[in-house]
Amino acid sequence: MQTLKVGIIGASGYTGIELARLLARHGGVALQFLTSDRWVGEAASARLNLDSPLKFVPVEQGVALAGSCDAVFLATPAESALHLVPRLLEAGTKVIDLSGAFRLKDASLYPGFYGLTHDAPLWLAKAVYGLPELFRAAIPKAQLIANPGCYPTAVALALAPLLRAKLAEPTSLVVSAASGVSGAGRKATEDFSFMELDGDFRAYKTLKHQHTPEIAQTLSMVGGVPASLVFTPHLLPVKRGILATAVATLKSGVSTAEVTAAYAEAYRDEPLVTVVNGADAVRLAQAVGTPRAIVGVTVEGNHAVAISAIDNLLKGAASQAVQNFNLLFGLDETQGVFG
Amino acid sequence: MQTLKVGIIGASGYTGIELARLLARHGGVALQFLTSDRWVGEAASARLNLDSPLKFVPVEQGVALAGSCDAVFLATPAESALHLVPRLLEAGTKVIDLSGAFRLKDASLYPGFYGLTHDAPLWLAKAVYGLPELFRAAIPKAQLIANPGCYPTAVALALAPLLRAKLAEPTSLVVSAASGVSGAGRKATEDFSFMELDGDFRAYKTLKHQHTPEIAQTLSMVGGVPASLVFTPHLLPVKRGILATAVATLKSGVSTAEVTAAYAEAYRDEPLVTVVNGADAVRLAQAVGTPRAIVGVTVEGNHAVAISAIDNLLKGAASQAVQNFNLLFGLDETQGVFG
Amino acid sequence: MQTLKVGIIGASGYTGIELARLLARHGGVALQFLTSDRWVGEAASARLNLDSPLKFVPVEQGVALAGSCDAVFLATPAESALHLVPRLLEAGTKVIDLSGAFRLKDASLYPGFYGLTHDAPLWLAKAVYGLPELFRAAIPKAQLIANPGCYPTAVALALAPLLRAKLAEPTSLVVSAASGVSGAGRKATEDFSFMELDGDFRAYKTLKHQHTPEIAQTLSMVGGVPASLVFTPHLLPVKRGILATAVATLKSGVSTAEVTAAYAEAYRDEPLVTVVNGADAVRLAQAVGTPRAIVGVTVEGNHAVAISAIDNLLKGAASQAVQNFNLLFGLDETQGVFG
Amino acid sequence: MQTLKVGIIGASGYTGIELARLLARHGGVALQFLTSDRWVGEAASARLNLDSPLKFVPVEQGVALAGSCDAVFLATPAESALHLVPRLLEAGTKVIDLSGAFRLKDASLYPGFYGLTHDAPLWLAKAVYGLPELFRAAIPKAQLIANPGCYPTAVALALAPLLRAKLAEPTSLVVSAASGVSGAGRKATEDFSFMELDGDFRAYKTLKHQHTPEIAQTLSMVGGVPASLVFTPHLLPVKRGILATAVATLKSGVSTAEVTAAYAEAYRDEPLVTVVNGADAVRLAQAVGTPRAIVGVTVEGNHAVAISAIDNLLKGAASQAVQNFNLLFGLDETQGVFG
Repeated sequence: MQTLKVGIIGASGYTGIELARLLARHGGVALQFLTSDRWVGEAASARLNLDSPLKFVPVEQGVALAGSCDAVFLATPAESALHLVPRLLEAGTKVIDLSGAFRLKDASLYPGFYGLTHDAPLWLAKAVYGLPELFRAAIPKAQLIANPGCYPTAVALALAPLLRAKLAEPTSLVVSAASGVSGAGRKATEDFSFMELDGDFRAYKTLKHQHTPEIAQTLSMVGGVPASLVFTPHLLPVKRGILATAVATLKSGVSTAEVTAAYAEAYRDEPLVTVVNGADAVRLAQAVGTPRAIVGVTVEGNHAVAISAIDNLLKGAASQAVQNFNLLFGLDETQGVFG
Repeated sequence: MQTLKVGIIGASGYTGIELARLLARHGGVALQFLTSDRWVGEAASARLNLDSPLKFVPVEQGVALAGSCDAVFLATPAESALHLVPRLLEAGTKVIDLSGAFRLKDASLYPGFYGLTHDAPLWLAKAVYGLPELFRAAIPKAQLIANPGCYPTAVALALAPLLRAKLAEPTSLVVSAASGVSGAGRKATEDFSFMELDGDFRAYKTLKHQHTPEIAQTLSMVGGVPASLVFTPHLLPVKRGILATAVATLKSGVSTAEVTAAYAEAYRDEPLVTVVNGADAVRLAQAVGTPRAIVGVTVEGNHAVAISAIDNLLKGAASQAVQNFNLLFGLDETQGVFG
Repeated sequence: MQTLKVGIIGASGYTGIELARLLARHGGVALQFLTSDRWVGEAASARLNLDSPLKFVPVEQGVALAGSCDAVFLATPAESALHLVPRLLEAGTKVIDLSGAFRLKDASLYPGFYGLTHDAPLWLAKAVYGLPELFRAAIPKAQLIANPGCYPTAVALALAPLLRAKLAEPTSLVVSAASGVSGAGRKATEDFSFMELDGDFRAYKTLKHQHTPEIAQTLSMVGGVPASLVFTPHLLPVKRGILATAVATLKSGVSTAEVTAAYAEAYRDEPLVTVVNGADAVRLAQAVGTPRAIVGVTVEGNHAVAISAIDNLLKGAASQAVQNFNLLFGLDETQGVFG
Repeated sequence: MQTLKVGIIGASGYTGIELARLLARHGGVALQFLTSDRWVGEAASARLNLDSPLKFVPVEQGVALAGSCDAVFLATPAESALHLVPRLLEAGTKVIDLSGAFRLKDASLYPGFYGLTHDAPLWLAKAVYGLPELFRAAIPKAQLIANPGCYPTAVALALAPLLRAKLAEPTSLVVSAASGVSGAGRKATEDFSFMELDGDFRAYKTLKHQHTPEIAQTLSMVGGVPASLVFTPHLLPVKRGILATAVATLKSGVSTAEVTAAYAEAYRDEPLVTVVNGADAVRLAQAVGTPRAIVGVTVEGNHAVAISAIDNLLKGAASQAVQNFNLLFGLDETQGVFG
């Protein structure tokens, strides 16, 4: 079996750490470099408990090595990715970007939702949105994969069967979701201290979260008509995991059986999506630590409540990036995703 | 100051314990009896850390003492309350029932949502729904007060200003709420074990929760037109508190300023409802341990997201019962609610 | 009843907040000022949910007001207290210092354990160590009370009965204790983030904790002979509370009955120490939120294991300061300690 | 590579589940059967997320299949193991018993500590205590391996270097340890409910825990002289992990350097024990989810505090059983232990 050369830019954030762990045990990969500002010069074996001789290097050293890699993963903030991705692509490597910098097809949304002006519209146009269960066919030919956000993965997998089968009104969607604290990244602020978060629960970025247009874009593509949603994310006092609760108004005359069948059908052959019996059967703890999404739907009258759970750092980031990598290079899609 | 004689039936559940603590320190109350199946014969001072000579007695002993009390509080399951409340009322005491047995005006809803046939329709008709911030005027004359449920309190306080001012479509409501574990009462089952709940989050009774018709009834009364909602409760890995996230579609032309003004107006003189600046400013931890509701609203386009937080055992049960008691007997509404 | 004028320096730390809440509801006290660096100019009613018109002022403004107060409480770090306490005392007020600055009679211990040179040895000599259950008689006459540390309170109450009755070898003591996160004070560092602490447990300052000599000093005074201990504090992933597990070697021939009797005797008339049946019956959660210490002892062969639990912010700080205040001014010792 | 046939008796407890997961991914093993009372007839793939066609069978069916297995693992209570182990051994398989039934060489200790009379003294005599880092040489020839308890593993690894090098007094040992809730096994009782445990901390079985003689036996073997200890286990509000804090009195004249060297030496070549720089550097969270023990020691005067952390279900049970299995069959000791 061939061994593919890969590097990771941003390997000391929560997502980057998971990615490094998965790739180190992948079996078909040789890690070429790991970059980290905070751990420059330290051994990956010490920091990440990896069986690897690598030491963390500065970002620029990673960029310099990119040309000799088959693929480079970025696990940086969007503002960094926006500038690094074109440089990496020009160096001739394939890129899997875990940030939001290349996810939104409409560049005009970036100032409002990300606070940045998108200055690489050509790459934006070429980027393939890497949600394998919905858009698998497009991935193998990509040069740049925009790896989906954590909430968008959870919400899209919860609602896609309804929209693809045209069972729900695409502008009726109301989604409430809750994420573990790792979703916020490493934060050394009082807001993310144990004293503030233990026993607490609250919404944040209500009606303003940057994942909202990403979700709408995905559901619009899936359903073939414009979709819109009201999205309220919450901060859960647990380390990991996202549970998304999505409410849709069913089209007139749609039966419970049709809805149930649509979910069974949509994910029948998907190794990494498990459909359970009803919305109440989806538990966050089932998904945490795994590369799987758990999805369930309950119908009553003309409403469906679809709930999904994922590990925000895995199916919502790192293991999905590995899925995309596998598809990009013709490997078994699930190789290495279980860690 | 007069001293009112009161008793508590069901004083060893989480709600009953809070109620006993509040009443023991109320200042205007002399506790006459506390009933408990599990602690019969034990001292209240030992079990509840109360400065009281009372011992727990069986329910029937409490019922026998009811006639000499000014008021009796029930903190039992609805099926018990259904049969006890008429007996207590006939004994001549006023009753504050913390269960759901006398909350729904439409008796035909009881079989489906509570699994019981309501056989006291006359008392049901006379019961006053004791949510002071919305229905204060009716409380002083009541003989039987149906103390609101925890979710209904949280959701009604979140949405009432919108509906009363007719700013939102009353059938557009989608509510996602999360409750701490005490909301389930004492449970010695594996489902409620630390191992199952720590780090988990999940929905339950999706589209079937018994508080759904209670919320709809309250919002219909407030708005003067039938209201309906999709309600999804979740189980949060914390001990106490409810956070309710309610999404409403605004009527055409309603401005953000009108919405903000409606909330300020609704709760301006309410000592136990605090309006904060936007939905994101509502934090569960702010409400836990207090008799207050915290409410905030955020508007974007034609949607409003209103969030409220309460302590499920206090504003969602025991301290609200004390508010009702105070109103019933002409005391200062907040006497004793802070414990 | 007279109303005593008091002020608090350092009212925005976790301890200071508790103290402000207790004093605001004390009944015999009129709060004159609250100082806080972080909240200067903000209303106490907003920040602390207090029924008070006070605004937070800078420290120097508090010092200027001290002369007109009956007592000033300090809830600052030791280095601040070291310099503020003499100024306050010279202004003519009584002082209750919740820091460690005046607890150790041997000034030569300060450089090693607190990293500061003690330059107020005369006041150090006059300071009374305010642990009422052990040294009540000395408190009423004090001008300066050194309010005990959280670990020292827990450990001293656990072991005092054994040492006072000369049942245990005073140099055999091995203590392992665990504190909730609030014990570290407000920290906006990654070490105290939810991600680092949730699910974790570890020792800190092993064999070097500044409370070690304070505990030895107290136990030496109680037993009348020099006592020494090996002390290992741990950080517990909960917000509040300390549980101390103390192991002592019994003197030859000491029986279980003698040990049990010594504990019963020591705390028989103490309103704020509850002796339970054996070390296993002491639970952290019983003590949290209360001004009480819970103590239990188990004997096997020639060893006793004595365990105590307190709320580190209450009996380990704020409510004990109120006990001392009450004793200082001839009030009922428990007035206001329950909040 | 050969494939070894193995079965697991008791595969639905927390330990059995971990064992099944490790063995399913081991690479050199073919799982023959999994027994479970609660899941009889259910698929392992559904319950354990395993890639396996096995269904859970009753215990007797497992026993009947034992003769065709190379090894059988037992993850049952001691009372069950006591009777099953001889039957399995007589069927000709090797046995790795994760219970305490064959750990104590002195059969007379069983009634007092385990509440059972040991009726298989011959097998007890032949059992090899499987703590590889201390007794590796004896393991390959064993027919029956008594897999160490969780606390004994943690405490023995913390103290062995001191005792083997004769640096500490073997009867001076005082150990306080804390375990996550999974240590208690599956419990559907109120004592182990979220409401009781969240935010709590307490000791249990003080001076009576059944692991005490096991620890003393191990340390006596390591040091060559009788060792004794005072052992206080605590229940920590986390799911997994044990942190043991062990205090020893050093022999006269022993230096810090000698102690540090003894730890470095003892574990220099151990792949699954990591020695960190001092007792404070040992963190529970570092060990959880891994098959490693983390050990650190701090010396001051004539005392050493040695702290160790392990995952109670892995190094304290399942992964250590896999280590023993590997040694028994001449495989690489760490094969499959990382899962």
